[in-house]
Amino acid sequence: MSNIVTLYHSGYGHTQHQAEAVHEGVRSVKGVTAQLIKVEDLESHWDDLDKADAIIFGAPTYMGSLSAKFKEFMEASSKRWYEQKWKDKYAAGFSNSQSLSGDKLNSLVQLTIFAAQHGMIWISLGQMPDASNSIGAKDHTNRVGSYLGAMAQSDPDSKAPSGGDLETARLLGVRVAEIVLKGN
Amino acid sequence: MSNIVTLYHSGYGHTQHQAEAVHEGVRSVKGVTAQLIKVEDLESHWDDLDKADAIIFGAPTYMGSLSAKFKEFMEASSKRWYEQKWKDKYAAGFSNSQSLSGDKLNSLVQLTIFAAQHGMIWISLGQMPDASNSIGAKDHTNRVGSYLGAMAQSDPDSKAPSGGDLETARLLGVRVAEIVLKGN
Amino acid sequence: MSNIVTLYHSGYGHTQHQAEAVHEGVRSVKGVTAQLIKVEDLESHWDDLDKADAIIFGAPTYMGSLSAKFKEFMEASSKRWYEQKWKDKYAAGFSNSQSLSGDKLNSLVQLTIFAAQHGMIWISLGQMPDASNSIGAKDHTNRVGSYLGAMAQSDPDSKAPSGGDLETARLLGVRVAEIVLKGN
Amino acid sequence: MSNIVTLYHSGYGHTQHQAEAVHEGVRSVKGVTAQLIKVEDLESHWDDLDKADAIIFGAPTYMGSLSAKFKEFMEASSKRWYEQKWKDKYAAGFSNSQSLSGDKLNSLVQLTIFAAQHGMIWISLGQMPDASNSIGAKDHTNRVGSYLGAMAQSDPDSKAPSGGDLETARLLGVRVAEIVLKGN
Repeated sequence: MSNIVTLYHSGYGHTQHQAEAVHEGVRSVKGVTAQLIKVEDLESHWDDLDKADAIIFGAPTYMGSLSAKFKEFMEASSKRWYEQKWKDKYAAGFSNSQSLSGDKLNSLVQLTIFAAQHGMIWISLGQMPDASNSIGAKDHTNRVGSYLGAMAQSDPDSKAPSGGDLETARLLGVRVAEIVLKGN
Repeated sequence: MSNIVTLYHSGYGHTQHQAEAVHEGVRSVKGVTAQLIKVEDLESHWDDLDKADAIIFGAPTYMGSLSAKFKEFMEASSKRWYEQKWKDKYAAGFSNSQSLSGDKLNSLVQLTIFAAQHGMIWISLGQMPDASNSIGAKDHTNRVGSYLGAMAQSDPDSKAPSGGDLETARLLGVRVAEIVLKGN
Repeated sequence: MSNIVTLYHSGYGHTQHQAEAVHEGVRSVKGVTAQLIKVEDLESHWDDLDKADAIIFGAPTYMGSLSAKFKEFMEASSKRWYEQKWKDKYAAGFSNSQSLSGDKLNSLVQLTIFAAQHGMIWISLGQMPDASNSIGAKDHTNRVGSYLGAMAQSDPDSKAPSGGDLETARLLGVRVAEIVLKGN
Repeated sequence: MSNIVTLYHSGYGHTQHQAEAVHEGVRSVKGVTAQLIKVEDLESHWDDLDKADAIIFGAPTYMGSLSAKFKEFMEASSKRWYEQKWKDKYAAGFSNSQSLSGDKLNSLVQLTIFAAQHGMIWISLGQMPDASNSIGAKDHTNRVGSYLGAMAQSDPDSKAPSGGDLETARLLGVRVAEIVLKGN
């Protein structure tokens, strides 16, 4: 069995919806054990990260980069970094913010560099962007045209990202699971 | 008189519309001399760049970063870099692509780093993003939520970016002109 | 009088040395009031940030990006962001890590994007890199070839960055002060 | 047999030495067919790229980002991008410049984003940085502390990067070959 953890932080619930969609995608692939962990619960789950074949990282973008709460996890992982314990594991990422761009690409780059510090292998989003005449329509997958990972945008008064953004997240979960299965 | 050059490359005309909007914004501010130069005509305009108080750089984002044609200009500027001839000039930037995000932030970062190599001072977009319930509506300014510079998105079968994106570009021109005037 | 704040986080003291060098540079320029504030003391200093003409931001690079502790400040500043209270202030930045590159450029980009979200104007380092045959010699300024801001490298068993890196930081302070004076 | 192409541009020969070191590393692993292609010769080699299991991209960093010549290749690959012909191939990257940092991280991010646009899977450098008291010594591998890919620094009057930087490049070639073999 391949083992895939989705590890996330969510401040107001939007990124949690995105994380659950990723997790659902992972879970839908046969032969994979899926785990969904929030950084607040990490204390008892470091072992799960150590045993995972892939870790999918996600956090909201606040003021142009990953949330401080998620960054705390990144720093706590430095002991693993020092031993390169996660070397050659697969990694992928996602982020949510209130704007369409909202500098989320900077958060995905931050995650990619973090994963590289751990010697991990980065799986890109793998979805062509919406190329229709209704670019940005809320039910389209990858409506903003992201590539490194999954982006979601949540309206200020909404509780979750749009349906298309959640489907984008779900498909990232499926993709990671399928690549991990092929590689194991 | 303050002197502001908008220097751009456009492959298919979309970024040219964006550049013209920036230029129009600069020109609308009293006390400023505005010049619009395309990189193809640069040979006879290096002096204009050397004399400018600010240079606003723009190019399309192709495959995730600035066009090769614009990069040729960046490399040709290395003689100026070596003498730090543009040190303390103001700089700003813009980019167009077919998707809403389309990794344009990476192009704006590329421009910011380029300007920093020249010792320039970077003027941010300075426009709050669209925070309405109609996020991304084509007539809104800064509809994607960009901060380092102006982003524009052009539909595949269109000839120019949306009206809101052109107004975003125009306002960047105004902003650069006003800051340069204050600083001179 | 122009008013310049150096705001920093330091985990083990190295970045504090770098921050003190920046602050010393600012202070050495006549006509400028200099303040050195650590993020831990920020509660009573938000007013000082609001009144500053320039804020120079600095933090260590941990796992490829700014420290979580500094990111907490960035997020706490979102109330100012919402009102664009810091719009048109000058900004600059610095970072320290254990390696020569150590992905510190990513931290400087993170700071640049953060400052852009606040509508600030970014002052680059403005120092040509070491071009000698002894590239990287510890007493050289800008020995690693950085442009967006000041980088410092601290050996694992040292208490502070090298002399050249501290001088690099000091010169950044001088530069920011001189540009602010000219612009005010 | 797994098939790995090292594709590079070199302006003055330094990056070619780095590319040859990567290629040598790939070639040293049994079960792998290695090809070294320069972008100038690409016209007759697109098929080789299409058939490769992994492509390792490399170019010099000029003015803070990849050379225009290499960017031309990136844009010429857009036809493959449109069909996502390279999806799920492995990718990795390297860059050379005259300074130790020299904003090479920006070039590696540019390559990572480019590879993600193609739906590729990014292999990080996977080498812990030099942690000795002689940080930056020219015979050390990963002396600058890079993670996304291999960095090399070449003195202005030298013909090639330092021995440690070439070994860093060689080890990246070995790493990519071993991961591709395991995954195929």
